[in-house]
Amino acid sequence: MNRMHKIAVGQAGGPTAVINASLVGFVDGLPENVELYGVMNGYQGLVLNEMERFDRSSLEWLKQHRGVPGACLGSGRYAFTSDLIVTAVLNLKARDIHTLVFIGGNGTMAALQKMSEAAASMNYELQTIGIPKTVDNDLSATDHAPGYASAAHFVSMSVRDINKDLEAMRNFEQVRIIETMGRNAGWLAMAAGLHKTCDGDGPHMICIPELAVAKEPFVRQVQNIVKDNGIATIVVSEGVAFEGGSQVQREVVNGRAVLGGISTEMEQLLRSELGLNVRSENLGMNQRSAMWAVSSRDHQEAYEVGKQAALYLEKGYSNVMISIQRSDAIGYNYDLKSVPLEQVFILGERMLPETFISNPADFYSWLEPLIGDQVRRYPPAWKRRKPHDLKYHKLEFGRSQ
Amino acid sequence: MNRMHKIAVGQAGGPTAVINASLVGFVDGLPENVELYGVMNGYQGLVLNEMERFDRSSLEWLKQHRGVPGACLGSGRYAFTSDLIVTAVLNLKARDIHTLVFIGGNGTMAALQKMSEAAASMNYELQTIGIPKTVDNDLSATDHAPGYASAAHFVSMSVRDINKDLEAMRNFEQVRIIETMGRNAGWLAMAAGLHKTCDGDGPHMICIPELAVAKEPFVRQVQNIVKDNGIATIVVSEGVAFEGGSQVQREVVNGRAVLGGISTEMEQLLRSELGLNVRSENLGMNQRSAMWAVSSRDHQEAYEVGKQAALYLEKGYSNVMISIQRSDAIGYNYDLKSVPLEQVFILGERMLPETFISNPADFYSWLEPLIGDQVRRYPPAWKRRKPHDLKYHKLEFGRSQ
Repeated sequence: MNRMHKIAVGQAGGPTAVINASLVGFVDGLPENVELYGVMNGYQGLVLNEMERFDRSSLEWLKQHRGVPGACLGSGRYAFTSDLIVTAVLNLKARDIHTLVFIGGNGTMAALQKMSEAAASMNYELQTIGIPKTVDNDLSATDHAPGYASAAHFVSMSVRDINKDLEAMRNFEQVRIIETMGRNAGWLAMAAGLHKTCDGDGPHMICIPELAVAKEPFVRQVQNIVKDNGIATIVVSEGVAFEGGSQVQREVVNGRAVLGGISTEMEQLLRSELGLNVRSENLGMNQRSAMWAVSSRDHQEAYEVGKQAALYLEKGYSNVMISIQRSDAIGYNYDLKSVPLEQVFILGERMLPETFISNPADFYSWLEPLIGDQVRRYPPAWKRRKPHDLKYHKLEFGRSQ
Repeated sequence: MNRMHKIAVGQAGGPTAVINASLVGFVDGLPENVELYGVMNGYQGLVLNEMERFDRSSLEWLKQHRGVPGACLGSGRYAFTSDLIVTAVLNLKARDIHTLVFIGGNGTMAALQKMSEAAASMNYELQTIGIPKTVDNDLSATDHAPGYASAAHFVSMSVRDINKDLEAMRNFEQVRIIETMGRNAGWLAMAAGLHKTCDGDGPHMICIPELAVAKEPFVRQVQNIVKDNGIATIVVSEGVAFEGGSQVQREVVNGRAVLGGISTEMEQLLRSELGLNVRSENLGMNQRSAMWAVSSRDHQEAYEVGKQAALYLEKGYSNVMISIQRSDAIGYNYDLKSVPLEQVFILGERMLPETFISNPADFYSWLEPLIGDQVRRYPPAWKRRKPHDLKYHKLEFGRSQ
């Protein structure tokens, strides 16, 4: 038990509405006899040696965050270079901390892996465990990551209702382009179609980064949708690029590109080509922070994944990430397992699989149980037109012109 | 009863999440022996003679919309000129419709009043009744309008949670500017402070159209907030203008200015003056359409206000709007009364009263019961710092130096 006596835990990357639940789960799972240090503001706290020892009272404070969005230790983005990684290991060493646990996404799992390697080369024993978190769901080696389902829920309900608003405004405004998060993967944008149950219902088109959008066919397709429906509700992931072009970046901060703006470019294109009134909007930070849109199942899983990390820590596991593995049994069932950080790193960013792109119904069957009871439909009686299969227009973009 | 035999009902202006509830309330309140016509797409339907007779089956369809956002008859914006008003009266006359009911805001009440006047001058008997609706709450002669409380709820929760996200990201991003709807009035922006219960909590500043923002003091104030808190969460109403400048318009469609963009201008100003990482975002259409953020009290009131219109119609009232009048009794109580359309018109757009601007606590006491049970707080135990009064920074903008 000596090795785990002192433990540092941190949160990194964009927060989610349930990342604090994972932290609380982790803390609840720890045995009594440990000294817990909170790493402030992500990797920055490792490098600047900003770590705070938790006593009984600050642990109480921490546990109050199970239902609070954001990251209560501070998260943020930080360019964690090789030199700084050595500094981080030295800071842990100075405090005699031999266990490091971080809650994060791809970048965090890579950082933990590098910390392990650096520590090994410095002959410093360091146990590392990663707890998965990302609204983008682009983390490999897990069925899904905590945070995603709540964000997917927010996106799906927003798009459903914004489309209803547009239906009413058709004499004033014909096209809405709704931009979602997701970085290079289409998981969140695809979730927008979850509530589409009636023919003609929005979203009428979903654009995902996995498929580049060719301008000319895109314009024609929107024109046809408006011809058929009077309006077009289009969902676009921030990571989508026009064919031959590149992703639209808001800015680059701390060496990391912040995506955003493709919906504005699409708005300009459609306005000039079709002469329609087009509005683009970005669903914004609510996607990852709206506590009131949290899926109760996501919230529960986030907590359990944290608790599992504490269990594996006690068992001496190292260089692993907790993985949610869904079983094939009837209904929704999953096991929490460990996967090597190296495997997560090698598999890299996880895109929407081809099978979900070609069979959206399979994707929605996969998604719905993650949101669970929180799926709030319009009144059961409500049916605007006849039920139909989702028209997944985006597929046509693959074939340019 | 003959006069009310044929009734036309329509919805106008920007939809809300509860405007259909008012329509259903109205329909539920009607006696059996009426012929109901739905006016499609707001005033446009009156002018283009797009009215649909509701039979039993389409009434069933209509009633399914009690819990569906948007406006199921079609709403939209339309330049309703004097000539077109005459056309509208003639269209009603051709159908022998002597009662016109519209659900809408200031523009709608003015339109109804003009329809009345036009009909009188044409010797055509026309009974008109207005049902209030606006997320902006800028409608006079009523304590509040259905639609506002749900939008206020959306804004307050969004800002509360987005601020928590920013707290976690302070090493990456220091300022967020969140733009709300509201047109020329600050009701919705002010609602953003509802959940501010702890010292240092966001929003740290609220900018409302009632007070012009002087650039230099604004920049200094944001700088001070960041100095004190590490971050600044700023809420700005779309109707805010910089001192000496004018409101920022997205565009002008059908003769109506669509506001939007002040948050982007503020972002640019703060980036260049303070060198901080600033993000502006617009809460968008969700404010008026998010069914899942609907206040149950707002939803109920919207329904009741519609039903009351049917009652007044039967009683022969004309040229009136239904008004929600709050009583001074302990607790939340209100009566539904009628007010002359002319009074609504004369009072004009309703701004935030000076007393709410100087005493935000009074405003929040007024607002909270409108949201009712839907006020979801962070876990009861959760307290980040000591409770305090809202720092209503915006007040300082009044004094430009």
